[in-house]
Amino acid sequence: MSLIAKLKRALTLAALCMATCPAFAQSIDIDKPLTIAKQGSFFVGGRDITSDTLSTLPQADPKGTVTVEQMYVQYQVPVHPSSTSVVFIHGCCLTGAEWETTPDGRMGWAEYFVRKGFPTYVVDQAARGRSAANAASVGAVKTGKLPPDALPSGFSVGREFAWALFRFGPRYPEAYPGLQFPLEAQDELWKQMVPDWAYSMSTPNPTVPSLGLLSGRLAKTVLISHSQSGIYPFQAVAGGADGIAAIVAVEPTACPAANVDARPYTRVPILLLYGDFIVESPPWAAHYAACKAFAASVNAAGGHVDVVETTQLGMHGNSHMLMQDRNNLKIADVVTDWIKHKVH
Amino acid sequence: MSLIAKLKRALTLAALCMATCPAFAQSIDIDKPLTIAKQGSFFVGGRDITSDTLSTLPQADPKGTVTVEQMYVQYQVPVHPSSTSVVFIHGCCLTGAEWETTPDGRMGWAEYFVRKGFPTYVVDQAARGRSAANAASVGAVKTGKLPPDALPSGFSVGREFAWALFRFGPRYPEAYPGLQFPLEAQDELWKQMVPDWAYSMSTPNPTVPSLGLLSGRLAKTVLISHSQSGIYPFQAVAGGADGIAAIVAVEPTACPAANVDARPYTRVPILLLYGDFIVESPPWAAHYAACKAFAASVNAAGGHVDVVETTQLGMHGNSHMLMQDRNNLKIADVVTDWIKHKVH
Repeated sequence: MSLIAKLKRALTLAALCMATCPAFAQSIDIDKPLTIAKQGSFFVGGRDITSDTLSTLPQADPKGTVTVEQMYVQYQVPVHPSSTSVVFIHGCCLTGAEWETTPDGRMGWAEYFVRKGFPTYVVDQAARGRSAANAASVGAVKTGKLPPDALPSGFSVGREFAWALFRFGPRYPEAYPGLQFPLEAQDELWKQMVPDWAYSMSTPNPTVPSLGLLSGRLAKTVLISHSQSGIYPFQAVAGGADGIAAIVAVEPTACPAANVDARPYTRVPILLLYGDFIVESPPWAAHYAACKAFAASVNAAGGHVDVVETTQLGMHGNSHMLMQDRNNLKIADVVTDWIKHKVH
Repeated sequence: MSLIAKLKRALTLAALCMATCPAFAQSIDIDKPLTIAKQGSFFVGGRDITSDTLSTLPQADPKGTVTVEQMYVQYQVPVHPSSTSVVFIHGCCLTGAEWETTPDGRMGWAEYFVRKGFPTYVVDQAARGRSAANAASVGAVKTGKLPPDALPSGFSVGREFAWALFRFGPRYPEAYPGLQFPLEAQDELWKQMVPDWAYSMSTPNPTVPSLGLLSGRLAKTVLISHSQSGIYPFQAVAGGADGIAAIVAVEPTACPAANVDARPYTRVPILLLYGDFIVESPPWAAHYAACKAFAASVNAAGGHVDVVETTQLGMHGNSHMLMQDRNNLKIADVVTDWIKHKVH
């Protein structure tokens, strides 16, 4: 019996009994106090730049040296930890907060994975959240030292545009029937969103070498990406990063092209995980088709890529925000079960 | 015997035995696992804006609604919690990461206060860290819809400028003798620094009403500010916010003026806490003098303001970054002892 068949049987059973036996979905008691052996934060990567447009305020020196492109990492290590660590990498226009408490106040994947025994690392991508953006060009344009088009290309995502991309419904504010995302708490999700400067940065994004450094330091690491960050773990593996034991790509917007050398990706087990309503969404149908072609190419080269849709496991109504949907911990169980089977 | 005299006696004893009995400084075992009853994150405040310059990228709609000015809050509640909560508010050009692990990898105040029994809330000020900045004007200037001077006035702080302000020494890179800040790990502090847009925001800063909302929700709250955020808790109290049980201002850059109505500030006990080398630093000598005048004014009106320099307690060499200095947990003990005596 294949792993996916096993997952499917277990999860179909779980789906059938959801109404009457909610404890099934969780093998652990999430209401119990949580004991942490060690927690904290640190930064990985970054480079120093000097600028004479750091400030446009009279009280601060415009000249000086700052560090940019570093990656913030916040972590918790449980007592009796697994030897496998997990690293959570958020998607577009969001920060590590995506993996914390859900918009409607339930436990997110970050804490849940700690409770399941994994040393857990949540990052803010370079230039987002607690990882500093480089604002020197803003000062340079404001003071006339550079023209307006020297400003970074960035975007904030309006909720009207995010709605269909996050597959809450076909168009704002219509919802798909049976949607698992807690729309009654959507305002809290919109508050998680921040401006995104990723498209003004180098390729690969500076987050990629930082993920490689972090994985090397942790030694046996599962990189769990979401959406826009989906390509990063593949780029880190292809770049020869040490310590990456597996990749879980939750709804990646991009995978490596199917016609490139697939061999680097045969080195680690890979899970591509998708929610519901893919066929209803032309951009997601295209992303999904491209990633399935990549998976086929890697598997043909001797790799180990599993492509799983939650609907195949008997779960329906999942949005793009799987880690925040009502059944988020049941989906987390799919991921932890996959890790336990695939990472040795 | 006055509280300050008691603190002084206890801390002088601690200072005398620092070399031989380091455990004295901590009444708790910081190497023991930590048990958390509840943790997570949420947002307070914020307002919706619509804009047609949210994006300068072809793949995202420039029009839409985003939320700005919300305040990110990350919290941990220990088992058997104190009925008094603490809220940590970072200073200029930093984020909540300031209160986490110190640059040289030791425990910060955020975790230490949890270990001492306080439900602990760490915020990112509006427009910094995981609290979204409003980037619409960047898109508007880049696309020629607004002139360059419509860009926000902000500043990143170069290390050369920060050095003297943080009182690491008289000028970069000279260090004061006996400095407690772990300069060997200074690069990690520079990585904590982010661009600061506070001076482009409304007065009071949107963080102030958000702190009021948070305090009201927590019911019995000690607001612990640092540096640039020092004025916020005073503004929240003067604005009539509920739930503020005390204010601890760690090296505030500003206090309310000494000649304003002092009565609002008589409602809560206040601790103004300072490190070493104040007299060596003209800007800090001025900030300190102004805050001492404020303290005198409030006390004359029947208030309860304590002004404490760590040097009065036998501790020498403390920088502006008291929460990251080598003796940071000993200083935290001063704060927790003060809270225990003052908040009922």
